[in-house]
Amino acid sequence: MKRFEGNRESILNELRTQRQTQQTDNQQIEQQVRDIIQQVRTAGDSALKELTLAFDAVQLETLKVPDAALKKAITDLDDSLLSALKQAKENILSFHQKQLPNGFIDTSRKGVVRGQLVTPLDAVGVYVPGGTAAYPSSVLMNVLPAKLAGVGRIVMVTPPGKNGIPAAILAAAKLAGVDDVYQIGGAQAIAALAYGTETIPKVDKIVGPGNIYVATAKKQVYGVTAIDMIAGPSEIAVLADDSANPAFVAADLLSQAEHDVMARAMLITNNAELADEVATELDKQVASLPRKTIARQALADFGAIILADNEEDMFAIANAIAPEHLEIQMTEPMMRLNQIRHAGSIFLGDYTSEPVGDYLSGGNHVLPTDGTARFYSPLNTTDFIKYSQFTYYSQNALTDDCENIALIARAEGLEAHARAVEIRCQKEETE
Amino acid sequence: MKRFEGNRESILNELRTQRQTQQTDNQQIEQQVRDIIQQVRTAGDSALKELTLAFDAVQLETLKVPDAALKKAITDLDDSLLSALKQAKENILSFHQKQLPNGFIDTSRKGVVRGQLVTPLDAVGVYVPGGTAAYPSSVLMNVLPAKLAGVGRIVMVTPPGKNGIPAAILAAAKLAGVDDVYQIGGAQAIAALAYGTETIPKVDKIVGPGNIYVATAKKQVYGVTAIDMIAGPSEIAVLADDSANPAFVAADLLSQAEHDVMARAMLITNNAELADEVATELDKQVASLPRKTIARQALADFGAIILADNEEDMFAIANAIAPEHLEIQMTEPMMRLNQIRHAGSIFLGDYTSEPVGDYLSGGNHVLPTDGTARFYSPLNTTDFIKYSQFTYYSQNALTDDCENIALIARAEGLEAHARAVEIRCQKEETE
Repeated sequence: MKRFEGNRESILNELRTQRQTQQTDNQQIEQQVRDIIQQVRTAGDSALKELTLAFDAVQLETLKVPDAALKKAITDLDDSLLSALKQAKENILSFHQKQLPNGFIDTSRKGVVRGQLVTPLDAVGVYVPGGTAAYPSSVLMNVLPAKLAGVGRIVMVTPPGKNGIPAAILAAAKLAGVDDVYQIGGAQAIAALAYGTETIPKVDKIVGPGNIYVATAKKQVYGVTAIDMIAGPSEIAVLADDSANPAFVAADLLSQAEHDVMARAMLITNNAELADEVATELDKQVASLPRKTIARQALADFGAIILADNEEDMFAIANAIAPEHLEIQMTEPMMRLNQIRHAGSIFLGDYTSEPVGDYLSGGNHVLPTDGTARFYSPLNTTDFIKYSQFTYYSQNALTDDCENIALIARAEGLEAHARAVEIRCQKEETE
Repeated sequence: MKRFEGNRESILNELRTQRQTQQTDNQQIEQQVRDIIQQVRTAGDSALKELTLAFDAVQLETLKVPDAALKKAITDLDDSLLSALKQAKENILSFHQKQLPNGFIDTSRKGVVRGQLVTPLDAVGVYVPGGTAAYPSSVLMNVLPAKLAGVGRIVMVTPPGKNGIPAAILAAAKLAGVDDVYQIGGAQAIAALAYGTETIPKVDKIVGPGNIYVATAKKQVYGVTAIDMIAGPSEIAVLADDSANPAFVAADLLSQAEHDVMARAMLITNNAELADEVATELDKQVASLPRKTIARQALADFGAIILADNEEDMFAIANAIAPEHLEIQMTEPMMRLNQIRHAGSIFLGDYTSEPVGDYLSGGNHVLPTDGTARFYSPLNTTDFIKYSQFTYYSQNALTDDCENIALIARAEGLEAHARAVEIRCQKEETE
């Protein structure tokens, strides 16, 4: 695991070099995805079946998963797991409910009413990746905020897999209130959601993570529908002072590192002794992990133990990283919140291990990665609504503003704009 | 001007055909933009100067416009225009101020604190197009919401032009509180804002309209920085019943049509007589417009007079179009708001001509176009902030949730996640 120390700037420079991931030349993938999208636009359902046979080696009879299969998945699920997912659902709902914005209306000026409406999206598509592991928690995280926002129709797409869709995924879909599940994946699923087919409805927004084909397809349909962010490698930064427990810190770094070999686990401390102890704990704890090969590789390639000169530098480095997950294992953690400028999700104190947020506390676990917490937010209910402005002017109010409107319009060379207002300004008292 | 009538579905199908703009093959532009971005990333300021010489035929001494030039622009501006822009500024501020979201904190469960912080972006870049006309109103619309959100640094880029940057643009920049103005435009300006150069700061979000090169560059840097929407052709739909004044309706359609030959002006009515009268008024009014050639072309190619069977169909058609601007020139316009599902900005009643919103009422005029009001919002203060979640768990709270967290983690095959929690659950009473 690489160590970084010295002054703030030199640490940040070294980190930047380490984090520079290979610029892959994706032109081939981009062309392939463009072709897939075109194929789905042209041939609809039959293209989806052909592509599923080609990429997933599954011959589909129907695209839609019958509702009975969803109900059965709930019944079949281990009771304690179902109960845990139900608690997660309740906590996600109670947290995200607080994010719902209100519209407003402003009547402060005579003859003028201005305001903003909030309306939910009509239809949303949620992509759930296939592969070896199933992530029912991600289904809840993507679907429930849309549900709370009042989205009319929520559909889910996920690759069929040779053994069918994992029961936990179907159960989570049912639990979250997904309207329809379609057993398609890859770029073809994104194309179907963006443009619609005979069976799959065209949606207004596509959310959910996926592999490079899914991500490329999302970027290509961006503008045709809205999309959530393009997810990069997952990351955690742990801010720890001498009060921190090295075993806890190491356990959290490992929970990040086990995700995949690109995962970034970083300790930022001002205490050299703690840095050493965490390194020792990492070696000890990693040895017994089922995913130790992945975790070790991630720590070797992207792990970082950063020894900063002082607390101020610790926070400056964390803000420069703008991590997806940020833990503060320091004294008085709540008092440190105002030193954080950029982070997706912040975990305060010795006992708020990051998996608490992944699974149960109710915040979202779909978070901005790779420094994009500088400008993106965790997935939230406002991702599933949009605003419409509205304005009413009486004739008197318009008459009062007539000259100024016409002045600006003519300064911009737009005579018809000026006339559209002037034709109405009669100085009659009709208000 | 094309007429559409019949049942709702047939009208919508015909409209879709008319609105299908030529799918241009932009691969050449995309490659050109990719090269420009690479050039700026490699050579920074010197590339900017070279590209400005090549594309704008201007030899730049410095990239930054001196602050003295901004101050002078304010002094030189026509007093009445300055005063009109000041009124616009006040109205924009009072409207957008109501959009600012609050963070929240939830302490409803013992031992758990959850919440959400709201923080402004550090730096924003505003693109202002060059060309024959200057749009100071757009400067206010793009800059003021960022200012209200608390963005730390707001920079503006705009092509130098052979006669320099129009004074109205510089004055509006000063009035809105732009920190720095740089005289560069095109894809090279977007590249500079996304990656930074010796002189131009890297920003977190780029907003503002531009030509195809600017739009392509914005799409290419999307993810490196955030961007606002990609703007399509401007559009208006006017809903009018027999109470509407045909001269007013025609004037508003023309104020849309004069923008450019791609602009879409649509009347939706259930009254055949009104449809005829508006057509007559259009012919009459267009004849004396300075931009009559543009307006006539826009009306011929994209204009629509839509005769619907009834009011319900009128609203269904409007919602299917999801227009950027929607006027309701009908009786009791405010009562119609709940029939609108998708529209960027709604103008209520006979006297709320669309240019009122373009220039003075205070709503934003940067709006979702081309049907994207289905999922995008008008530019607003939330475009310049982001959220960070935070969570605190006491040891007791964590111990209570320990089993459920570990259960879900193991169901997802993530053992290190389960252990990171379990290592902390000691059932000690340390809360």
